[in-house]
Amino acid sequence: MLNLAKKMEHIEHFHVMKVLQRAKQLEKEGRSIIHMEVGEPDFATPEPIIRAANQALAKGMTKYTPAMGIMPLRKKIASFYQSRYGVNISPQRIIITPGATGGLQLVLAALLNSGDEVLLPDPGYPCNRHYVSLFNALPVALNVDADNNFQPTLDSIKQHWSEKTRILMLASPANPTGSILNLDALKEYAQFINLQAEEEHPAAFIVDEIYHGLTYGAKTDTALSLENHQNLFVINSFSKYFGMTGWRLGWVVAPERYMEALDRLAQNIFLCAPTPSQYAAIAAFDRESIDIMEQRKAAFQKRRDFLLPALKELGFKIPATPDGAFYLYANSQTFSNNSMKLASEILEKTGVAITPGQDFGSNEPDKHVRFAYTTGLNQLEDVVNRLKKYLAP
Amino acid sequence: MLNLAKKMEHIEHFHVMKVLQRAKQLEKEGRSIIHMEVGEPDFATPEPIIRAANQALAKGMTKYTPAMGIMPLRKKIASFYQSRYGVNISPQRIIITPGATGGLQLVLAALLNSGDEVLLPDPGYPCNRHYVSLFNALPVALNVDADNNFQPTLDSIKQHWSEKTRILMLASPANPTGSILNLDALKEYAQFINLQAEEEHPAAFIVDEIYHGLTYGAKTDTALSLENHQNLFVINSFSKYFGMTGWRLGWVVAPERYMEALDRLAQNIFLCAPTPSQYAAIAAFDRESIDIMEQRKAAFQKRRDFLLPALKELGFKIPATPDGAFYLYANSQTFSNNSMKLASEILEKTGVAITPGQDFGSNEPDKHVRFAYTTGLNQLEDVVNRLKKYLAP
Repeated sequence: MLNLAKKMEHIEHFHVMKVLQRAKQLEKEGRSIIHMEVGEPDFATPEPIIRAANQALAKGMTKYTPAMGIMPLRKKIASFYQSRYGVNISPQRIIITPGATGGLQLVLAALLNSGDEVLLPDPGYPCNRHYVSLFNALPVALNVDADNNFQPTLDSIKQHWSEKTRILMLASPANPTGSILNLDALKEYAQFINLQAEEEHPAAFIVDEIYHGLTYGAKTDTALSLENHQNLFVINSFSKYFGMTGWRLGWVVAPERYMEALDRLAQNIFLCAPTPSQYAAIAAFDRESIDIMEQRKAAFQKRRDFLLPALKELGFKIPATPDGAFYLYANSQTFSNNSMKLASEILEKTGVAITPGQDFGSNEPDKHVRFAYTTGLNQLEDVVNRLKKYLAP
Repeated sequence: MLNLAKKMEHIEHFHVMKVLQRAKQLEKEGRSIIHMEVGEPDFATPEPIIRAANQALAKGMTKYTPAMGIMPLRKKIASFYQSRYGVNISPQRIIITPGATGGLQLVLAALLNSGDEVLLPDPGYPCNRHYVSLFNALPVALNVDADNNFQPTLDSIKQHWSEKTRILMLASPANPTGSILNLDALKEYAQFINLQAEEEHPAAFIVDEIYHGLTYGAKTDTALSLENHQNLFVINSFSKYFGMTGWRLGWVVAPERYMEALDRLAQNIFLCAPTPSQYAAIAAFDRESIDIMEQRKAAFQKRRDFLLPALKELGFKIPATPDGAFYLYANSQTFSNNSMKLASEILEKTGVAITPGQDFGSNEPDKHVRFAYTTGLNQLEDVVNRLKKYLAP
């Protein structure tokens, strides 16, 4: 019998998958289930994108593309940075990837040696630390909490910085907390990393912006507004704001001098992102598509504005208002010190499927659950009523 | 300045990309170029598959699927093994992956520790050895030659087998040689690996079958016909026989006991294969699609049967007749001991784009070039005429 690689010990199942599985089983048994567990918008891919896919297929656009992606799409993304953020990015610095996971893989594979350390916020998106483990590097948790808007302080970064630190990776908006980083905060981190580089300890700064576009009220800055950062990598995706989860399409903006190596690596590890998805995504930047996305964003905001106070009233603690994404990361200590058990009981008793904190790290996961507001307002009212009956009988 | 990870030194550009780039430049300048450099069928994706994609998109099938892929497609693949090879495979053992590269990545990531050794034929598909390097493992070349039909002998495997050997990886049909493995050969390798396992040195046997279906005359056996092999992984793809390169879709058949770990890993490293591609591929097994593919296979065979003797007559040496894929790996020593220079000169002087041996390893690459017969018979006649003028003036 052949054993698995040692690193496989560090790569965990998503606990949410068990919730999902059980939820589906209950549905089969005739129970009414409201899904708030998976990080996927309930909205379908906008019609103009579907149309563009159909047109591309009719034209036979089904062959390999260059590893960096098709130039028309890279140019569209560059224009989008210009029009939305006023930032000038050369299309040559944009790599089209199979999902943001493909982008993350590409950057980590290019940078990480065995034993390198990567600083990551905890709670955070689980795949990130697992990807670090995949390359025999070490994820180092920066515990974040509501007092600091669920983003690491510079002190915390300095404290965890070691000779082996090679990457600082942050997310804005963040999963599961919905927290965003403003430009001042981004500058502070970037300056620290630049300073380290001057002292002959170069490290990369990776900013995950896959929930960009889904922010409610707060101004959202892209890390690409930072000037003269030599080692900044921004990862983005068509999955969330653009509603293209299953198409597996994302992008990376990398410093120019890494492009040759990233091209070489992409040729080997995924050849190219899915071709029909690339052609479809060109239409994602059309006025008609953006209008649909902005309507959806407004719908998400209404959901947040309804659910946030309602959950607080029920006894969940959400001290920092999440400014983006479609999650509420709630302290559930009022009800239990075992959020896994709590989530399971809520599912069994009320039919509301939520994610226990365990998926997001080791920083008090027992005391937290995540609600994804990826379901309509009517359903959310139902959620609150069901929870009210169960939690405050 | 941040350096790249050390392993990046072992991950090379495809030389063919430079040929392709130069060929496109010449085309822009108005030259007539015949492309035989890229490993991509010239045929478009069959119409029934396109139709299935359109229908799936119309139904909104654009969301995440389970990491293992949609069950209807896993079942279709299982039925295909039954009807085409008479082999009974549970759909539970089939993982739908983002291309065969995604499948290869999945299996290697799950199995390889740093410093492990992987035995691979040389010449062979370049991504394979680069993927091994990506996980800090060591590719060990098994030199193959025409005397042994470009497949490693058992003696060679024994000779290169070390305490650190963890995987033997073969391909049938192989790229670039088109060589296939019959069931007797597969059995011989499998028995050797089983014997090692009994002596407490378990290793995995990975068989790349991505060119299956494209064999000409010779009976093709799948390694899945081997009975009771505990550590056999078969990798396959919709790219070549099914004509779906850009859709990025493949599959892995793994032993049942690895499925939990592979599911866990797939959740983290790619979430799922592209959803529209998965729904489209269901139609790849329809009678109508298979008929189209079999016509194309017949066309490939005609091309091989024309080009093989013609190249030999020109002075290329192809001592072992390739039984599959769409490549002729030709010894070009008659003309030059520098195949890179030869390929470049042939491109510049005749407009015929071919791949130098360098892409396929370190086993006499200077003496070989690869012709991909992914262009029609008329064009192949033109190729032969152009080469005749240039090589034998």
